[in-house]
Amino acid sequence: MPSFGWISFTTDYGLSDGFVAACHGVIARLAPEVRMIDVTHEVPPGDVRRGAAVLAQTVPYLPPAVHLAVVDPGVGTARRAVALVTPGGLLVGPDNGLLVWAAEALGGVSAAVELTNPEWFPGPVSRTFHGRDVFAPAAARLAAGADPAAAGPALDPATLVRPPDPVVRTGDGWLEAEVLTVDRFGNLQLAAPGAAAAALPWRLRVQGVAAVRGETFGDVPAGELVVYVDSADQVAVAANGDRASARLAVGGGDLVRIEGA
Amino acid sequence: MPSFGWISFTTDYGLSDGFVAACHGVIARLAPEVRMIDVTHEVPPGDVRRGAAVLAQTVPYLPPAVHLAVVDPGVGTARRAVALVTPGGLLVGPDNGLLVWAAEALGGVSAAVELTNPEWFPGPVSRTFHGRDVFAPAAARLAAGADPAAAGPALDPATLVRPPDPVVRTGDGWLEAEVLTVDRFGNLQLAAPGAAAAALPWRLRVQGVAAVRGETFGDVPAGELVVYVDSADQVAVAANGDRASARLAVGGGDLVRIEGA
Amino acid sequence: MPSFGWISFTTDYGLSDGFVAACHGVIARLAPEVRMIDVTHEVPPGDVRRGAAVLAQTVPYLPPAVHLAVVDPGVGTARRAVALVTPGGLLVGPDNGLLVWAAEALGGVSAAVELTNPEWFPGPVSRTFHGRDVFAPAAARLAAGADPAAAGPALDPATLVRPPDPVVRTGDGWLEAEVLTVDRFGNLQLAAPGAAAAALPWRLRVQGVAAVRGETFGDVPAGELVVYVDSADQVAVAANGDRASARLAVGGGDLVRIEGA
Repeated sequence: MPSFGWISFTTDYGLSDGFVAACHGVIARLAPEVRMIDVTHEVPPGDVRRGAAVLAQTVPYLPPAVHLAVVDPGVGTARRAVALVTPGGLLVGPDNGLLVWAAEALGGVSAAVELTNPEWFPGPVSRTFHGRDVFAPAAARLAAGADPAAAGPALDPATLVRPPDPVVRTGDGWLEAEVLTVDRFGNLQLAAPGAAAAALPWRLRVQGVAAVRGETFGDVPAGELVVYVDSADQVAVAANGDRASARLAVGGGDLVRIEGA
Repeated sequence: MPSFGWISFTTDYGLSDGFVAACHGVIARLAPEVRMIDVTHEVPPGDVRRGAAVLAQTVPYLPPAVHLAVVDPGVGTARRAVALVTPGGLLVGPDNGLLVWAAEALGGVSAAVELTNPEWFPGPVSRTFHGRDVFAPAAARLAAGADPAAAGPALDPATLVRPPDPVVRTGDGWLEAEVLTVDRFGNLQLAAPGAAAAALPWRLRVQGVAAVRGETFGDVPAGELVVYVDSADQVAVAANGDRASARLAVGGGDLVRIEGA
Repeated sequence: MPSFGWISFTTDYGLSDGFVAACHGVIARLAPEVRMIDVTHEVPPGDVRRGAAVLAQTVPYLPPAVHLAVVDPGVGTARRAVALVTPGGLLVGPDNGLLVWAAEALGGVSAAVELTNPEWFPGPVSRTFHGRDVFAPAAARLAAGADPAAAGPALDPATLVRPPDPVVRTGDGWLEAEVLTVDRFGNLQLAAPGAAAAALPWRLRVQGVAAVRGETFGDVPAGELVVYVDSADQVAVAANGDRASARLAVGGGDLVRIEGA
């Protein structure tokens, strides 16, 4: 198997505890030559959907890698631990929907295995920290060139858990879509693909508030709303120099309606 | 002396300022081949005890390293700057209790020196940023193979400042222990070792609230409390899908009582 | 041109989204041998002045590097994208004042170019994420040894946008200065250079509150204010074991008056 020079790492562990570092340490011991790119460790606790969205939007810009991701509210229960093979790299994490969107962004799942081989785990496996005890060691071994087939039995990719499809509805000059993510700037990224913006008129209302269709924040006066196609090619809503999420009082998972003014 | 390929780095500097990066820079200049693992920089300001606990629980999973740690409310006063030698690696930081638990996790202090040799410091030593001016350069030189004895005079390990021992009391079917850490998920890690959980019955009360003894979060219904042995082998309290710290209104240093229901 | 082993990276992207990682990924693809030092990604959104101050105070401690910095509220508008050459390294980012103080800390701008060569950008350039699409690729190419002159046309350094000079006034035994930064500990760094402290008496009032001139936090009893020269050689105000910013209810950009008691 080819080996990978990089492991990307996405979790909801936060940066206040030693959890992320323990995983870095496990990887450094097993695959010292591999380098890490931390995607984010600030996924809201247990928010699999948000983790899935961030990961899927980031992997296209990363070098070929093993993408290790752990947002795992079901840790220690019967949910499977998996590794997915795609044309663009490997993914390692819990089978709870976290990895599937990223796998699709990397070309789709060509093979999948369940991580069950105890020889792949360097020590006893705790019931609450599979990031350290199961997933990080597996990612390290895979990055170092181990064959995924040695990690455990193959599983049918069709059985992988998927996140529910986000709500997107479009009509004549209007669009309703779920907020996929709210970024640090309060910009609202909707589940609607960028192409959907082209069917919208230039003068708009977002949740009833006046907005215009534009291309960047500076296309509207300070404080006003702009509907644009963001850098991940999704329809998005921003307020120039302000937080659209606060202006509209909406957050992740909420439904947003955009229509002609 | 052997050299180390890694420096781990733990502080209360936060990530909003340039403090952590300045230390990374000092190390990159003095020991460019060494790689860094950031343990956390989000220790609450001046909370030596929390820093000591996080460091001690993380170092067993890190590769052989110089462990640089700076939570240093007494910077610029008479407190000593030290390097500790252990079978599992070196530790560098202030002599205020921060390093001792980690040293014990690495096999105990076999030698200790006070960092006083001005030739080890690349520039003038400020009175308020010894992380950059004293500790990071010392860690870099030690990782690059310098002899700790060249850093300053030996000191008697018995004179190292220790954190006060946390409170742990156990009786027939009950346990009272200080909260050692609250993690990002609101899980309460108690000062009681994991073995103490075995003496508890299966139906419990924690601070008067119903709980069960289990092994992982999913062992109880959503929102309910579980008492378990955590991934650092300490007795811990979690709420499945919720924050135990909020449910019980307790935080670091508080005393928690667990007893039969 | 010489190449650089390091890229430093400063933004207001925060750590919750995948923005920082996407930039790391772009750099890893174009210049895989280069190593990264993250200065901070927690600059308050759009706060160019704060970003400029943190960067300028950190670069003197970093190894020779390409310093990539993106705090860019005008992304996608007519503001220029630039690379600056200094005796101490290169700087890459928007021409909005973010880079100039750091350039001066590195010896001054000896040449500057506008980043316009489309061959330097690996893909289509979005209107809202020039960090990923313009600045990170340029930093990677420069670190790998590309000639800045190949990035676009030279520009006159005198035309670079500068942040407004912060307010500093001094008189007989008093000083008024703008708060340049508030660090994680609540310490107030003023725009006045450290030398200005020498003209102050030892017993002081800061915004009317009693304070003393000292050298470190421990020079005053717990909770009391100390005026000192900080590790960046600026006049600063701290409260021993407390937050001076909260004690005095002042923040970044506010004017602080220090006078004899």
